[in-house]
Amino acid sequence: MDKIIDFINVNREKYVDELKTLLAIPSISALPEHVSDVKRCAEWCADEMRRIGLQNVRLIPTPGNPVVYGDWLGAQGAPTILFYGHYDVQPVDPLNLWHSPPFEATVRDGEIYARGAADDKGQVFMHMKAVQAHLTQQGRLPVNMKFILEGEEEVGSANLDDFIRAHKTELKSDVAVISDSPMFERGVPSICYGLRGLVYFQIDLRGSSTDLHSGSFGGAVANPAFVLAQMIAQLKDRGGRVRIPGFYDDVRAIEEVEREAWARLPFNEKKYRKDFGIPKVFGETGYSTLERTWARPTLEINGLLSGFTGEGAKTVLPAVAMAKISMRLVPNQDPVKIADLFEAYVREIAPKTVQLKITRMQGGKAWMTSFDNRFVQAASRAIEKGFGRAPVFTREGGSIPVVSTFQDELGVPSVLFGVGLPDENAHAPNEKLDLSNFHNGIIASAILYDEMARTTST
Amino acid sequence: MDKIIDFINVNREKYVDELKTLLAIPSISALPEHVSDVKRCAEWCADEMRRIGLQNVRLIPTPGNPVVYGDWLGAQGAPTILFYGHYDVQPVDPLNLWHSPPFEATVRDGEIYARGAADDKGQVFMHMKAVQAHLTQQGRLPVNMKFILEGEEEVGSANLDDFIRAHKTELKSDVAVISDSPMFERGVPSICYGLRGLVYFQIDLRGSSTDLHSGSFGGAVANPAFVLAQMIAQLKDRGGRVRIPGFYDDVRAIEEVEREAWARLPFNEKKYRKDFGIPKVFGETGYSTLERTWARPTLEINGLLSGFTGEGAKTVLPAVAMAKISMRLVPNQDPVKIADLFEAYVREIAPKTVQLKITRMQGGKAWMTSFDNRFVQAASRAIEKGFGRAPVFTREGGSIPVVSTFQDELGVPSVLFGVGLPDENAHAPNEKLDLSNFHNGIIASAILYDEMARTTST
Repeated sequence: MDKIIDFINVNREKYVDELKTLLAIPSISALPEHVSDVKRCAEWCADEMRRIGLQNVRLIPTPGNPVVYGDWLGAQGAPTILFYGHYDVQPVDPLNLWHSPPFEATVRDGEIYARGAADDKGQVFMHMKAVQAHLTQQGRLPVNMKFILEGEEEVGSANLDDFIRAHKTELKSDVAVISDSPMFERGVPSICYGLRGLVYFQIDLRGSSTDLHSGSFGGAVANPAFVLAQMIAQLKDRGGRVRIPGFYDDVRAIEEVEREAWARLPFNEKKYRKDFGIPKVFGETGYSTLERTWARPTLEINGLLSGFTGEGAKTVLPAVAMAKISMRLVPNQDPVKIADLFEAYVREIAPKTVQLKITRMQGGKAWMTSFDNRFVQAASRAIEKGFGRAPVFTREGGSIPVVSTFQDELGVPSVLFGVGLPDENAHAPNEKLDLSNFHNGIIASAILYDEMARTTST
Repeated sequence: MDKIIDFINVNREKYVDELKTLLAIPSISALPEHVSDVKRCAEWCADEMRRIGLQNVRLIPTPGNPVVYGDWLGAQGAPTILFYGHYDVQPVDPLNLWHSPPFEATVRDGEIYARGAADDKGQVFMHMKAVQAHLTQQGRLPVNMKFILEGEEEVGSANLDDFIRAHKTELKSDVAVISDSPMFERGVPSICYGLRGLVYFQIDLRGSSTDLHSGSFGGAVANPAFVLAQMIAQLKDRGGRVRIPGFYDDVRAIEEVEREAWARLPFNEKKYRKDFGIPKVFGETGYSTLERTWARPTLEINGLLSGFTGEGAKTVLPAVAMAKISMRLVPNQDPVKIADLFEAYVREIAPKTVQLKITRMQGGKAWMTSFDNRFVQAASRAIEKGFGRAPVFTREGGSIPVVSTFQDELGVPSVLFGVGLPDENAHAPNEKLDLSNFHNGIIASAILYDEMARTTST
């Protein structure tokens, strides 16, 4: 391993330059105008897989964006790692809040700023460089590896489950590795053993065929913006609890051992409020901030639009109002059941004064694994060697629905081996990745493959 | 008068062509990028005043857009009419709903479609042509006239009251005439004797310094879009009644005679719902649709914006949420008092989890006059002659704050002599003006000056 680690250390600067090329591609999957950029990014990833020595590299078409596939299967008898990542990124609006252009990666104070730096291009690239280091220095990998990179993670991975089901044999493996999550905090590397699930909706209300004059009509017809606000207000109570009947029925309670372990983590609420400019934390009564984000479900408004939103005053009574609403789910909530409950409740609370349209946009199950899984333990050792500190075990509030699919369809556990930071601004302006975490992450990834090769089936 | 009416009839087509030139100027006062168009429109109006024979024509500067002034004061001993109108127009978004470009006036089925056709350029132009007909055919007007056209009506007339106070002597007159309101319905000309007032606010909430990932933060911090919805829901109860304490204290009750007169008007709720695509009318319990819009105050949401509003799904927890909220007031509510009550209530219901910013944007008092005023009766006779049918007496839900200022500062009553139609789409896409009403309106205006000359002071 020393030779490999030396090689990684020597190439430090070069890796950053190469990563900038990948970050320059605006592969925004949510916006139709970027469809050709998404494709170009897939091709760039395939070319890179060939450059680092992976085999059988190809774009596998799906009804949406292609999956980039590459493998190296020369480690007879060793475990097979299925590495999953994504090459698509979030939209960049509001663009005016970025301090440097989102697709011209810029290094400031040891951080690289660009859309996709942390989520997920930087972390995918880390593994590419770890593979390259093994293959150039040893001519082989200690494990078999299959890479799949999808292009629709940021829009709900609508085609990924079908893809996995259709390629079960090709994707046969012993463990999945995913690097798409943050560490607990700077200097506290972590392994994540639980994720929340997601269901995402758009609600459209129409109160009239066209916008009306708020003087001539105000007071005599339902205002869809007002009705929308009334409906949203009925989705949660003042204690932060979701009011959809049955929403909490299948929620797995937090275990006492988890509560205690999380209470020992170096979480500083004052710093948290300061870092994110939060006047006062708020959430479900009876739970801590970590419990609320890691192990309790929530319902959030992701977007609102109605009427006149420009500068100044326009006396319009809006014809339509729109909300994007999503729910984060925990074990053992079923996304389809929750989506049905949501839809039924929204239909029930919608008054007859407006036309209601409900659009289901995406969904995914929550997921948990056990700490004592042999691959999780291998990852723990790799992180300790790469970062000089044993990881803490955490859960995450975000969603990576594919981990449930890997469990259900391929029967493999997932190891979530993330090197982002909680303030990395994934999904917000000024997304960034800490370059020393990127560098240590390449080393830890290279060690991870080695440690996983040493595990024995139990 | 016959010679004048003949002249107006002969020039019918020409008037429409001239009006198109005025409608081609995108004088949108709400949008900073149209500031030079607003100025150009003021100059066009001044040039037109000179062409039709008005005197002392000039642009009078204000801290905002200029007032266009012109007069004719040769009718010794006759009353002086102060004609007020506005040359600015509403924004045009959503542009994609217009069937023809908003600033290329297009005639279809006897209607002229353009932004400003009804509100208010078409109705201002009607008086210009009536003045022109008198001056070219008789060399004089039967009354003295002072025209003032303002350029900030659609953004709250912030400088108009000061302008009127500063020019009290120059604006001395006996009656104000305003043509900026619709008739009751097609074929039912009307005189409006009451208007609602207005107060308009923008509310901005901030929950964090930047947009956050809704997975990593959802459930642990206040969502400003959700908080905004909760606050809005507390502004009105389910019966459509405003919940701001003290809001109804000064509301003048509807008189039994008004209720009875309005109940006799040819209002068809089924047609109203069909015309405007309204699934079900809704408003304050215990009042009819006409009562709700003419004589009861209301609170409306004019705009909502937060988070991700594009196509698709973005799992963002918004940093900010914005609402534009306005109230329509009736006699004898005081806009400043109501604005204070609103602000106090909003501050009271805003939780500590968000930063709140309240911006007062505009305001104006409600207004009423009496039917038996001699100028109102003169207008009634002019309409009967111009349209072949006696007018009905109505109130209006919209706001023309200047009528209160005319009353308070100049001590003159206003005659609201409007020829728009209720479905003219003022403030919405496809604004239009019926050309036969435009034409009859020019004739009725010409007669109006004559009838007003015959009134005697009581």
